[in-house]
Amino acid sequence: MKALLIIAHGSRRQKSNDEVTQIAKELSEHTKHDFDLVESAFLELASPLIPDGIEQCIKSGAREIIVLPYFLNSGRHVTEDIPQIIAAQKARYPDTQITLRPHIGASSIMLDLILRMATDK
Amino acid sequence: MKALLIIAHGSRRQKSNDEVTQIAKELSEHTKHDFDLVESAFLELASPLIPDGIEQCIKSGAREIIVLPYFLNSGRHVTEDIPQIIAAQKARYPDTQITLRPHIGASSIMLDLILRMATDK
Repeated sequence: MKALLIIAHGSRRQKSNDEVTQIAKELSEHTKHDFDLVESAFLELASPLIPDGIEQCIKSGAREIIVLPYFLNSGRHVTEDIPQIIAAQKARYPDTQITLRPHIGASSIMLDLILRMATDK
Repeated sequence: MKALLIIAHGSRRQKSNDEVTQIAKELSEHTKHDFDLVESAFLELASPLIPDGIEQCIKSGAREIIVLPYFLNSGRHVTEDIPQIIAAQKARYPDTQITLRPHIGASSIMLDLILRMATDK
């Protein structure tokens, strides 16, 4: 069983956190081919935190978890904080294959997306 | 003359700010068809701030400026802070057509992008 865990920063504004939860929900309905479940978690300020999100995926039966940072910039959170947390979870769950993917801002189509949003094409 | 102004939050970490500047630079080389110049500016913590970015575009000859928030979530920055700043700039430069576009996270292809980054397709 394969899970996608989307990680966002987390906000004091619940509506921002709800957006991330909603993205995970919508994706879970459209990606049965690639993932059996899609969950979301937060680096800070909101729940579930990343370790709780990983635990939830495992409790739901996941043996493989793809972790995707929903961040635009490769700041400290992306380059240090999240990798450290994921490394700790890998050590905690050696029987689960946990893979940290590049953050969303690293997408090769980001420039095209910016242009698309700028021109309404 | 038409300008694209990409707005990011701004970080204490200069490398994150440099990424945004680099995106604007790369876009400026690939979007001559749509924009005569591409600049970047920051909401806070980094320079140029948004009003300075607008001023720079106008000094460079722009009579039309498309403002694109490089934000994933529609938090307070996107829904309140940036619109207020842009409204003030519109009042300040009535002869310049300044248009605030939806933030990047509002893209209709965001779910596809997440899935693409999660599956390496």
